Amino acid sequence: MKYDFAVGQTNPETFPVEAFKRAAIQAIEDEHASFNQYPGGKGHPQLRALMAQRESEREGVRVDPEMMALTNGSMQGVTLVGQALMDAPGDQVITEAFTYSGTIAAYKGIGLDMVGIPVDESGMRMDHLEAHLRSMKKKPKFIYALTAYQNPTGVNLSLERRHRLIELAAEYEIPVVEDNCYGDVHFDGDKPPALYALSDDAHHIYLCSLSKIFAPGVRLGYVLARRPYFEKIVGRRFDAGSNTFAAAVMAKFYGENLWTHCEAANVALKRKRDLLVSRLKDVLEDECVWSHPTGGLFLWLRLPEDTDLDRLRTEATNKGFNYAEGRDFHETGERVPYIRLAFGHVPDDAIVEGIPVLAQCVQRARSSNAPRDFTSLFDD
Amino acid sequence: MKYDFAVGQTNPETFPVEAFKRAAIQAIEDEHASFNQYPGGKGHPQLRALMAQRESEREGVRVDPEMMALTNGSMQGVTLVGQALMDAPGDQVITEAFTYSGTIAAYKGIGLDMVGIPVDESGMRMDHLEAHLRSMKKKPKFIYALTAYQNPTGVNLSLERRHRLIELAAEYEIPVVEDNCYGDVHFDGDKPPALYALSDDAHHIYLCSLSKIFAPGVRLGYVLARRPYFEKIVGRRFDAGSNTFAAAVMAKFYGENLWTHCEAANVALKRKRDLLVSRLKDVLEDECVWSHPTGGLFLWLRLPEDTDLDRLRTEATNKGFNYAEGRDFHETGERVPYIRLAFGHVPDDAIVEGIPVLAQCVQRARSSNAPRDFTSLFDD
Repeated sequence: MKYDFAVGQTNPETFPVEAFKRAAIQAIEDEHASFNQYPGGKGHPQLRALMAQRESEREGVRVDPEMMALTNGSMQGVTLVGQALMDAPGDQVITEAFTYSGTIAAYKGIGLDMVGIPVDESGMRMDHLEAHLRSMKKKPKFIYALTAYQNPTGVNLSLERRHRLIELAAEYEIPVVEDNCYGDVHFDGDKPPALYALSDDAHHIYLCSLSKIFAPGVRLGYVLARRPYFEKIVGRRFDAGSNTFAAAVMAKFYGENLWTHCEAANVALKRKRDLLVSRLKDVLEDECVWSHPTGGLFLWLRLPEDTDLDRLRTEATNKGFNYAEGRDFHETGERVPYIRLAFGHVPDDAIVEGIPVLAQCVQRARSSNAPRDFTSLFDD
Repeated sequence: MKYDFAVGQTNPETFPVEAFKRAAIQAIEDEHASFNQYPGGKGHPQLRALMAQRESEREGVRVDPEMMALTNGSMQGVTLVGQALMDAPGDQVITEAFTYSGTIAAYKGIGLDMVGIPVDESGMRMDHLEAHLRSMKKKPKFIYALTAYQNPTGVNLSLERRHRLIELAAEYEIPVVEDNCYGDVHFDGDKPPALYALSDDAHHIYLCSLSKIFAPGVRLGYVLARRPYFEKIVGRRFDAGSNTFAAAVMAKFYGENLWTHCEAANVALKRKRDLLVSRLKDVLEDECVWSHPTGGLFLWLRLPEDTDLDRLRTEATNKGFNYAEGRDFHETGERVPYIRLAFGHVPDDAIVEGIPVLAQCVQRARSSNAPRDFTSLFDD
């Protein structure tokens, strides 16, 4: 597709080709003997040490690499945590009402029932979470939250709500799984601390990824947890461990520059977000509202109620415009009037040209040309 | 440990450092843009095409890369197949009575009950399999067989038994999962065809790996299956796919030499096997018998009945000799009088020096010095 805003890929323009080649050569020269071995449950020690250092530097608290296991992207972490925390199919997990489609597939696939809590511009709504916990008939096995630049909405869980989430989880004795896979894709504004930096509750589990700060093709992420969760999670993996070769190369890469690449990549991503928001303002302000992500790869756009979603898809496909549909991120697949725009890998000129194309398609897919009758992205 | 025969690692002496570096550089230069994308369920198309070509060249039948999915080593394939074929915990899988400890952990971990069929020098015993199938109360979901250079025993499933396995599986309508992860680690003697080359039964599923022909640290394997199994297996993965970077490098590597490295590596492995067998003959012929693997990485050694297995472990540890215990490969963990010697990564001089050390330890761990009273590796 000419204008492909569908998938949360990273930006090929900032891929550090030369540094990555140097890292690969160095890793092969220095560590090839270890490639003949099996990585084991935790994986490459130096990469774990570097990722622990990253976490420590970002959050200001010590992170123990011995309580970290590398995973095949954060998605393996998402799945392993679900398998470790559930007892039987039909067990419940609480998530944001809109959450990552891959997480929905994984949790439904392993037999979890999902309970979605509404989100707004400040993330998961704690009043709704509290109301659910007060009235629940069945205790959920855990709460899964994408706390930063949430996929698909792009919103951040506010500091106040992070504290409240910690309180509620403690009160009801429910483990919290924080998926911070977009956490370092930060442009501007507030950047609240990770939950583990706000509380040393042993029931918090933390997931992160190299997919967003480097590239999804290296399939590396990690899970941080405390006893007995850590052992349970690692004990659910039967894959003999995460890629030693890819981990060795990433360890050489980050050994040289733990933050440099991510910071440079974020500058380009911020420019893409600015372009996207500016173009939306130009051409869709009367019809739509959207999130204002201060990081991450996604913008969440609300369509007028009278948009024919099938017609929109057809029009957009005909014009070479691709996007992800709101229902893909809804735990029951409800046809909600939202689309997700992934801007991380879209060339600047495709943003500039593409958004007016989207606007045209939205206008054609509507049954009226009345201005929108909503002012906020989320209903109360 | 000075003499480490415990783990099925590959041979660091033959790791193709320079060719692998060239492949890495080429892959990064040509394909880095694809590293920004998610690999998807099947994974890197060129590596699949090359692996299909390998299979076709080895087996003489056409293999479709579109019915192949890359996995994170064959262990992810082993696990996904189990998850795809089982309906509920307590379902049964038939395996060889001695099988890979990783497979045992995976299948027990996902809730399968294992039924072990005795093996002998020609692999899984079809008379025992038939007797089991005739009298079974519950139909197993599938039969899992390590058909070539079986782990831990090193034996090959004979051509006659392969045909019989195919017949029995068809008669009882039970899918067969052939794990051929050691298939190309071939030294001499017969090399029977893979099951898919002997029959086009759609209920056969095939697993293979790059771990043994290249290195486990690249964590790449593959599964070949037909409808509806293929879709079911791929549908059970929630990890967003197998490592694009590692796959791209391996595709460049095999694009240059699909068989060369494996053939060279096998020469060195054959030498290690010959050394090992020759040393065993020198020092343990009165006490033990062992398998004569024509490929693979393992030799299976039967100890005299009067060996104190705990004492053997202590003696061996004290002398710096490490091995894998028979019970690790037994589906119920029974303390069988066998040990597995993994010779693939052991330096030649450590084989020459180490086996007399093992012999000393065995002699010390016995309660007599009577000659062994068994002539064959397996009881009838």
